[in-house]
Amino acid sequence: MRLAHLLGPDLRDTLAQEPESLVEALDEFHPEDVAEILDDLDIVDAVALMRVLPDDYAADILERLEPDRQVDILKHLGAKDSIPVFAEMAPDDRVDLVQDLPLALSEQLLELLEEQDPEAAEETRELGTHDEETAGGIMTPDVVALGPETKVWKAIEEVRRLSREGEVETISYVYVTAFKGQLVGVLSLRDLILADPSKTLKDVMRENVVRVEIDADQEYVARTIAKYDLNAVPVVNEHGVLRGVVTVDDVVDVMVEEATEDAQKMGGVVPLEEGYFSTGFGEFIWKRAVWLVILFGGQLLTATVMEKHEMTMATLAGLVVFIPLIIATGGNSGAQSSTLIIRALALGEMTPSDWTRVLVRELGIGLSIGVVLGGVGFARAWLVGDDASLQLAITVTLSITAVTTLGTTLGSLLPLLIRRLGFDPAVSSTPFIASLVDVFGLVVYFAIAQTVFSMTF
Amino acid sequence: MRLAHLLGPDLRDTLAQEPESLVEALDEFHPEDVAEILDDLDIVDAVALMRVLPDDYAADILERLEPDRQVDILKHLGAKDSIPVFAEMAPDDRVDLVQDLPLALSEQLLELLEEQDPEAAEETRELGTHDEETAGGIMTPDVVALGPETKVWKAIEEVRRLSREGEVETISYVYVTAFKGQLVGVLSLRDLILADPSKTLKDVMRENVVRVEIDADQEYVARTIAKYDLNAVPVVNEHGVLRGVVTVDDVVDVMVEEATEDAQKMGGVVPLEEGYFSTGFGEFIWKRAVWLVILFGGQLLTATVMEKHEMTMATLAGLVVFIPLIIATGGNSGAQSSTLIIRALALGEMTPSDWTRVLVRELGIGLSIGVVLGGVGFARAWLVGDDASLQLAITVTLSITAVTTLGTTLGSLLPLLIRRLGFDPAVSSTPFIASLVDVFGLVVYFAIAQTVFSMTF
Repeated sequence: MRLAHLLGPDLRDTLAQEPESLVEALDEFHPEDVAEILDDLDIVDAVALMRVLPDDYAADILERLEPDRQVDILKHLGAKDSIPVFAEMAPDDRVDLVQDLPLALSEQLLELLEEQDPEAAEETRELGTHDEETAGGIMTPDVVALGPETKVWKAIEEVRRLSREGEVETISYVYVTAFKGQLVGVLSLRDLILADPSKTLKDVMRENVVRVEIDADQEYVARTIAKYDLNAVPVVNEHGVLRGVVTVDDVVDVMVEEATEDAQKMGGVVPLEEGYFSTGFGEFIWKRAVWLVILFGGQLLTATVMEKHEMTMATLAGLVVFIPLIIATGGNSGAQSSTLIIRALALGEMTPSDWTRVLVRELGIGLSIGVVLGGVGFARAWLVGDDASLQLAITVTLSITAVTTLGTTLGSLLPLLIRRLGFDPAVSSTPFIASLVDVFGLVVYFAIAQTVFSMTF
Repeated sequence: MRLAHLLGPDLRDTLAQEPESLVEALDEFHPEDVAEILDDLDIVDAVALMRVLPDDYAADILERLEPDRQVDILKHLGAKDSIPVFAEMAPDDRVDLVQDLPLALSEQLLELLEEQDPEAAEETRELGTHDEETAGGIMTPDVVALGPETKVWKAIEEVRRLSREGEVETISYVYVTAFKGQLVGVLSLRDLILADPSKTLKDVMRENVVRVEIDADQEYVARTIAKYDLNAVPVVNEHGVLRGVVTVDDVVDVMVEEATEDAQKMGGVVPLEEGYFSTGFGEFIWKRAVWLVILFGGQLLTATVMEKHEMTMATLAGLVVFIPLIIATGGNSGAQSSTLIIRALALGEMTPSDWTRVLVRELGIGLSIGVVLGGVGFARAWLVGDDASLQLAITVTLSITAVTTLGTTLGSLLPLLIRRLGFDPAVSSTPFIASLVDVFGLVVYFAIAQTVFSMTF
């Protein structure tokens, strides 16, 4: 039976008449797919469905819904009926949900959870103290941690017990911790299955454990997992004590999120919280208007520069014709450089201290490409049009070479400077660089024109 | 002992005098870290080191080196000495390497491999037939596939045997296949450990297996793994027969690679094969020049439009002053739209068939923001400057509103059109959209100016 059909227009009837068979049928589907369909149901049906599902399955689905939808469902269920599902959620997802709930409801839920499972409640409060975009903010505290003297057979027993009791979400590794909880070793589940059951963990563990600190940025965590091809990375506090684990599936989400954020910033948009169609019209307007207005404000300077040179334009025939070409060329070369540098910074390929190497390279590239483009510009300005003159052609050529170089230089140094100042380099967006180069490009163009036309050939 | 020290300046002496102790010391470090250091050694030392390492460890390191470096090392080792390491490589990495090697060397290696391990050689040739950017191109054929009647205890035995013999790289799931190899079920390693050992796989397996087709695009594979939070996704052929598996660590690499490629395309650069500093100067020049020259060619049209309207500009006072402002505003709003749409397409949030919804939205946004910016432009054109006039102010306002809307519309529809035509929408880069809007923007500006100034107020 198709899933969409199961949850189709007859859903209310089925829920009323034979809830058990519906639940049984749903069990064969991946929670992600059920969540997707439940997202499209109206809220009354969605809540009715959540009520009949087993608590752990309902929690599995709830974890996969959009934050707004999660909040809606819990509000409709009420604190009391939410608790069984809330308690079954994975700790990291529970924390995220608590942060999205209205304060009154979240407090009510946490208090109820305290009565039922004080440990989980405390864990949730504790996890909530970490910044959402750090290792602590995305980790789950559920790990298998055993002492170094544990026998291998005993460790396997423990893994089975914890899995069966649902104490740990996913198990890829068993961590070995010393007396005070310091992380001292690691074994993959596969290592464990392969090891001689009578040995102790300290004999078979790997001592050199890749780890991240609890306040490490989530992008760094993602890069670490990617670099070492891990399924999960342990999170430790400043004393090396194991506090949790970040799994690769959370990291994949982080990477998609960060790539989208970066792309949007680079396109001059305040990053959207949700997808294109899920973002409201009003929010859309302001997230785009804010940058457009700022850039527009900056661009007003071009009008001032132009006004200052109205006489020059009136006197020097043909000069005005090449203005759009010249400023756009600078903008394009700046866009390339800033994109390359922002991405290289994101990948950890360079740091702001590499600025001299970058500058040398970008100067060379700007000059080389500038000369080529300048050559084409020369031909256009000398051969075509009524105002064609050698002075004009020389002015255009020199200006194109200059703005291309200006573009590559500004476009590469600005992201490095912004990172150096501790901000996200992606805010030096393509439109931002282009606007900046426009203003400087005009100034350069007029300066070159005045110099060249004052000479005689 | 620090790793950098181990492989430091005394490396040659140590290699000559006590290779065993070096090998033993290295074993405690993650192969990724050893690979990183080996990358910086000169080729003679690197090859000498590879010779003393155990074959499987050397293969582990080789897999993590840059393609150029891999090829260099195999060339120096020679076909004969390369074979033991080559044979130990993971099948997917081996295929990638074969594709990078000079044809003569790769054929020699494959022939030698044939003598030693005919199965591996055939597997390598077979895998090489898939497009590098599809599921088939990134999968490994090493999977644990068992029949539905297999007992759970027997399955665990099999996993242990295959792991121990190094037949499978990583095991997260056991796949259940029918008589002809069709994929019919799946169990995670954890499910297997938890299950009653006397049951058969068909009693405990999950039947609804998330899978991808062998010719699916790697981005789709990555999205599937991310969506369902999997550690690996099985790859099937057109008859549903299991052919291999793509693991999440490969997908993480794919995602980083694709995000970088997209960002570079969007910035108007032909995607680089390697990092910023590893890319040669000549390659850099042409990968950037090609787009800059094309865009420059298009931008030459602006000069033509300007020439056609030299009279207009001479007659209508102050018109020229606002040209940079107007075209830049169109470019900026276009950059925003194209970025948002390209990213939404990459995330699968929309398809080209959504174009009407997109158009309505972008028209609305363009008009709304355009009116705001137009208002500011009105004030600037009416109140400041020698040529201030009501006609000019009206022209500027209408033009700004028009080009903003033009920008959002073109910037959103063009990526959709490009995708619809079967190309990558990311080539409709920010500079590309900006250049297009520049030309149209000028035409619009002059048209509006002529109309407005011909009226009397």
